[in-house]
Amino acid sequence: MNAQQLFERIRTKQSFLCVGLDTDSAKIPEHLLSHEDAVFEFNRSIVDATAPYTVCYKPNLAFYEAAGTKGWQSLHKIVSYIKDKYPDMLIIADAKRGDIGNTSEMYARAFFMDMKVDAVTLSPYMGQDTVKPFLSFPDKWSVLLALTSNPSARDFETLELAEGGKLYEKVIRTSMQWGSVDNTMYVVGATQAQMLADIRRIIPDHFLLVPGVGAQGGSLQEVARYGMNSRCGLLVNSSRAIIYADKTVHFAQVAGQQARAMRDEMAALLKNL
Amino acid sequence: MNAQQLFERIRTKQSFLCVGLDTDSAKIPEHLLSHEDAVFEFNRSIVDATAPYTVCYKPNLAFYEAAGTKGWQSLHKIVSYIKDKYPDMLIIADAKRGDIGNTSEMYARAFFMDMKVDAVTLSPYMGQDTVKPFLSFPDKWSVLLALTSNPSARDFETLELAEGGKLYEKVIRTSMQWGSVDNTMYVVGATQAQMLADIRRIIPDHFLLVPGVGAQGGSLQEVARYGMNSRCGLLVNSSRAIIYADKTVHFAQVAGQQARAMRDEMAALLKNL
Repeated sequence: MNAQQLFERIRTKQSFLCVGLDTDSAKIPEHLLSHEDAVFEFNRSIVDATAPYTVCYKPNLAFYEAAGTKGWQSLHKIVSYIKDKYPDMLIIADAKRGDIGNTSEMYARAFFMDMKVDAVTLSPYMGQDTVKPFLSFPDKWSVLLALTSNPSARDFETLELAEGGKLYEKVIRTSMQWGSVDNTMYVVGATQAQMLADIRRIIPDHFLLVPGVGAQGGSLQEVARYGMNSRCGLLVNSSRAIIYADKTVHFAQVAGQQARAMRDEMAALLKNL
Repeated sequence: MNAQQLFERIRTKQSFLCVGLDTDSAKIPEHLLSHEDAVFEFNRSIVDATAPYTVCYKPNLAFYEAAGTKGWQSLHKIVSYIKDKYPDMLIIADAKRGDIGNTSEMYARAFFMDMKVDAVTLSPYMGQDTVKPFLSFPDKWSVLLALTSNPSARDFETLELAEGGKLYEKVIRTSMQWGSVDNTMYVVGATQAQMLADIRRIIPDHFLLVPGVGAQGGSLQEVARYGMNSRCGLLVNSSRAIIYADKTVHFAQVAGQQARAMRDEMAALLKNL
């Protein structure tokens, strides 16, 4: 799926919502716990309830790795389930990987060949070596951390450089040369919405993956105001505010309602595209 | 294991070698391929052959994740094997993780509670949030990327900051406040040996994990010259130069010989401690 195809999906569904599958087994409704793979049952219900309102799912690897081999199996199962049932959906493995060349090659195989997701989030600290092996896969995306939504993003990401500009701007300016708008996205936190305008001056055309709307306090209106471009250019992620909106037997229905409400808000923001 | 205990292990074994288990199933000797878990068989043989000469093993997660659920199982098996048979060995999961607080908590559980390794490598780009949950586990180590051994380390890590100094120095100066010499190490590539002297001026007492000796071209003598402190303060990793030294039925024996040769070189460097 290239950028134009992603935009067409967004226009068709009137949604640029990405649902974050940060599934913590301690937060799953009690009635599911008797299932052999309760995490998968939870995810499957969430996916079926939210699929009409979203273009993207983003499982966060940490939540699966915490359950060891069983968690890893559960992750593979939900990725296969989405791929089979909703083949137009973009799946981003939120893994924040990054290592030297021969190791990044193995990670690229892990995510693009074994797990078969469409995109993976990457940490840029170690430079181009860490990203290049991912970019060599056709029709796959590298999603680079630029300016994240957490409070300590200010520890390093916003440091002023001697050559001018901030570190995250340098990360964007340098890495935008490695790939193209069809295989590179950037993570920009919704809690930093005013900085989206600065980022749009550097990369007017790239897609941005925006976490932090909802539980972390970011505003969808602000994100769209500063970050939207002529092909939308945004995937806005919501995890906890959707998947844990209700903890009863109605959890999936309520998650669907939350996703639909976000889709409705997004449809209004998309009306001129 | 705190820093003093690690130093005592190093002194007892006259070695500060860490063997990197970057086990690529495509590089395993042919006669092992009939085993149900050839990667585990390979790792077990390497571990048994090298254990007398090393204080540390460092499985690189990418190589296991590339084989999906089976790889993840294989990784758990070798970690358990080492813990049971060689309980004094430090095990570092080379994972280079890093995410917002609630996610890093899940990663910390994955590595310290489920997998039960002693240490994990972490990427500092997103700041303190990403490291804090790991530091709250007693007797466990966070190993932060500072100055890595790959060519593109120069893309960002060595950028000059407006406030003075380079990015990797700032990462060290800031993060050294988060933990202590008993729970924080830094990754400093052997290919940057001359910079070890600068780093030692900032953190004279911390342990450094030094990759890049061997296949990547770094020199053990140079690393010891610029990086060693009064409690050694170094773990030097070698992966490919040991585990793939021979590809016949003698692979384990040859790996043991390579590790012993490094131990001998290290023993000479340790003679005044």
